[in-house]
Amino acid sequence: MTAEEAYEFLLKTSLESSYLGSLGELAAWDQRTYLPRGGQGHRAEQLATLARLLHERITDPRIGDCLAAVERTALVSDPDSPQAVNVREWRRDYDLATRIPERLAVDIARVTAEAESVWEQAKQADDWHRFEPYLAQVLDLQKEKAHALGYLEEPYDALLDRYERGETAATLEPLFRTLKDSLVQLLEKIEGSGRRTATPLLARSFDIESQKRFCRTVASALGYDLECGRIDVSAHPFTIGIGPGDVRITTRYNENQIARGLFGTLHEAGHAMYEQGLPREHWGTPRGQAVSLGIHESQSRLWENFVGRSRGFWSYVLPVAQAELPRLSDTDLDGFLLAINTVAPSLVRVEADEVTYNLHILLRFELELSLMRGELSVSAVPEAWRMKMREYLGIEPSSEAAGALQDVHWAAGLVGYFPTYTLGNVFAAALYAAADREIGPLEERFACGDFASLKEWLRTKIHEVGSTYSPRQLILRATGELASPKSLISYYETKYSELYHL
Amino acid sequence: MTAEEAYEFLLKTSLESSYLGSLGELAAWDQRTYLPRGGQGHRAEQLATLARLLHERITDPRIGDCLAAVERTALVSDPDSPQAVNVREWRRDYDLATRIPERLAVDIARVTAEAESVWEQAKQADDWHRFEPYLAQVLDLQKEKAHALGYLEEPYDALLDRYERGETAATLEPLFRTLKDSLVQLLEKIEGSGRRTATPLLARSFDIESQKRFCRTVASALGYDLECGRIDVSAHPFTIGIGPGDVRITTRYNENQIARGLFGTLHEAGHAMYEQGLPREHWGTPRGQAVSLGIHESQSRLWENFVGRSRGFWSYVLPVAQAELPRLSDTDLDGFLLAINTVAPSLVRVEADEVTYNLHILLRFELELSLMRGELSVSAVPEAWRMKMREYLGIEPSSEAAGALQDVHWAAGLVGYFPTYTLGNVFAAALYAAADREIGPLEERFACGDFASLKEWLRTKIHEVGSTYSPRQLILRATGELASPKSLISYYETKYSELYHL
Repeated sequence: MTAEEAYEFLLKTSLESSYLGSLGELAAWDQRTYLPRGGQGHRAEQLATLARLLHERITDPRIGDCLAAVERTALVSDPDSPQAVNVREWRRDYDLATRIPERLAVDIARVTAEAESVWEQAKQADDWHRFEPYLAQVLDLQKEKAHALGYLEEPYDALLDRYERGETAATLEPLFRTLKDSLVQLLEKIEGSGRRTATPLLARSFDIESQKRFCRTVASALGYDLECGRIDVSAHPFTIGIGPGDVRITTRYNENQIARGLFGTLHEAGHAMYEQGLPREHWGTPRGQAVSLGIHESQSRLWENFVGRSRGFWSYVLPVAQAELPRLSDTDLDGFLLAINTVAPSLVRVEADEVTYNLHILLRFELELSLMRGELSVSAVPEAWRMKMREYLGIEPSSEAAGALQDVHWAAGLVGYFPTYTLGNVFAAALYAAADREIGPLEERFACGDFASLKEWLRTKIHEVGSTYSPRQLILRATGELASPKSLISYYETKYSELYHL
Repeated sequence: MTAEEAYEFLLKTSLESSYLGSLGELAAWDQRTYLPRGGQGHRAEQLATLARLLHERITDPRIGDCLAAVERTALVSDPDSPQAVNVREWRRDYDLATRIPERLAVDIARVTAEAESVWEQAKQADDWHRFEPYLAQVLDLQKEKAHALGYLEEPYDALLDRYERGETAATLEPLFRTLKDSLVQLLEKIEGSGRRTATPLLARSFDIESQKRFCRTVASALGYDLECGRIDVSAHPFTIGIGPGDVRITTRYNENQIARGLFGTLHEAGHAMYEQGLPREHWGTPRGQAVSLGIHESQSRLWENFVGRSRGFWSYVLPVAQAELPRLSDTDLDGFLLAINTVAPSLVRVEADEVTYNLHILLRFELELSLMRGELSVSAVPEAWRMKMREYLGIEPSSEAAGALQDVHWAAGLVGYFPTYTLGNVFAAALYAAADREIGPLEERFACGDFASLKEWLRTKIHEVGSTYSPRQLILRATGELASPKSLISYYETKYSELYHL
């Protein structure tokens, strides 16, 4: 077998699996939007069968043979070439997939399914003890998985690397430490400022159809191509890239919470523009894929927060909003900006503001690291949770449902996943600052309705690059600087000093 | 390999392929309902890849080995057992799939794709000559396919059998002859009756949202389970069984043509109730599948016409309609029945009434049979078409677009498909008459809103039986009589004599 033949086989296999996977994406979209209730059981079986068939395909020993035949040949000598990138990533996927014994994969699927269902009941009943033994099992299996996957420093790294390649506990700990110090300080200053915000204006009642129209208009103005996408409604907003020309988002609307539907839409539109900007000609191979959860989250948060909560953006968009939603017509820009940028410690992560959000993530990162290291027992989680909430946010939950039971992630076995949310913020800030230097001032562009320049900049620097580089390399190449929380901290300090007159 | 092991392998393969196929069904549904325009290219590639992978699966030589190992063993000694039915049908599918050389399959796919696209242009331009060479190619390939598949009497039979197992030109010719004689006579009497109908009331304008609500109400009253289905809008109405608990229909609405949306819904609801009534425990195997197009069509036409255009039905439903659609409130039952049962020769099959519809099918059956037999040349089709239209319906098209270019079927290579429409009517009449004898008078039941009795009868006699028997055996077992056009002719004569005072 020549290197070329081996590569051809790998390419064909990758494309076929991607087409099958993309049918799974469509099925997942349908499951959360239009699936009739009676079809849920069939859908679960259908997706499980597809997952099994895809796993069989990805662990096909012929892939191992072909990889061996193409690695270290002239075909992949340029490490940035599509061939080299693909072979590198196919190797990674093959090794990861073949390292997990089938027995372990089956156990994980079974235990997390049980744990998710028990978690739901436990949350409803506000009963940590019910969930405890399941979380213990989930963690044991995740430890086993980490050992199967392999790591250099500690088991947690193996899990984290699946979501954010290259990151380790050792890279994240100093990053979170720096963030914590600044954010806790900033939060104290904001709380001490005495400035109160006008959030009630966001609690006014707005007709859902008008909200929908407004959200479509804004998403489209930012650059989300609706000819190649659509916006539907689902309980939890998500973005799904079914294939080139077909990247869909969902959001949810609440008559009395206009911010929910709107910022949900902007967030998902950010994810979707990344997917829409991936190089079409490389679809179905790693070269054409999004590189990591952290980079994906940087795109959603950049458009949701850095753009969507900025003065420049709203000086252009507020009149549009007032035309579609006349109840906003008595609102001025300053009041509106303060309303959508209110910082206030709260118990539930998904409702947190930009600043305190990262402290929620920090808390989870620290707890899951301690759990994985065996320094914290499952039964001690609620108390540790309360302690950290008090320390970082100055409040604590009176129930487990609003505390350690609030997120599904651990039940679902997603250990090492939370940090990617904050990494998303860190990367977004770095990118935004670099774009502002190169093609800014961005807010002046937004104020004239020019969002295309920023989108184009991101397209060239991030979207079209696919998985060519690791996330940190990508940020370095795009911004000229190593990723650090510096830009994020400076963004928060500048923005909130102005808003809160600090 | 024991027979049991062989059967296990075949079963597993069948289920896996069905789950994959069912993802394809979902993708086809989405393609015609919600797919963004930009995603069309990807969807076509996705479906083509799936078709190729499914073809690889179905022609896997291990299937041949397993079939050989299980056939003629004790496991399949009872021919009506699920095992025997499945093995019989898997053998049929395997033989058919392996008999067509890959080169031929590829040619057919390519030529029909071209022919469909040229047909669309030719129809628009009203230009038969443009389409002629493509139809000639399509027919040549269909003849080649027929030879590859094999037949006893003539090539046409091989094609027909794929859509309606067991049927041949020799079984259909006398059936159509009998039908033609009666229908042409009945049509003459109706036309001579001088009775004119009140169709304008159906051309009144009805708000689309009200039409939708009314169609949902009626479909649901008939027994289409909307918890296990949904109704969407598409250019051409269709039913799609994605899996147990998930059988969807579509329809189309026109403000000035209420009959189109309504009878479209009833027709598709009939198809859908068949799919919903298939035995869930046998899903993914032939035992759990619909047996043929003719039987499927019998279900749609039974609910659309035998039920949905009956006096009993409307004496219950008209008040419901009048409540939802107040513009119908000046309508009386007799006028309404005549309006929805108007018989009048027309040029376009899909707009034809119940009676003349079969004459359209007859015309196509005769032409395609002559084409396949080499008795008719492609260039002579338009003239032959006009002659037959004149002979059977007393009218003729002034354009090819309303004549020989009106249907996509031939361009799509669907030779031998048309007869299943009329077989559907024949089977529907036989079933309806039998049900009327056993649990009737059915119209009295309909008049009280009892549609469940008929649905249950069909469920037991047809739906739950899946593919256990051939279509004609199924009809014989359900009705106690051999299928013949007798019931259909008698239904038409009774119904239209009354309506038209013949």
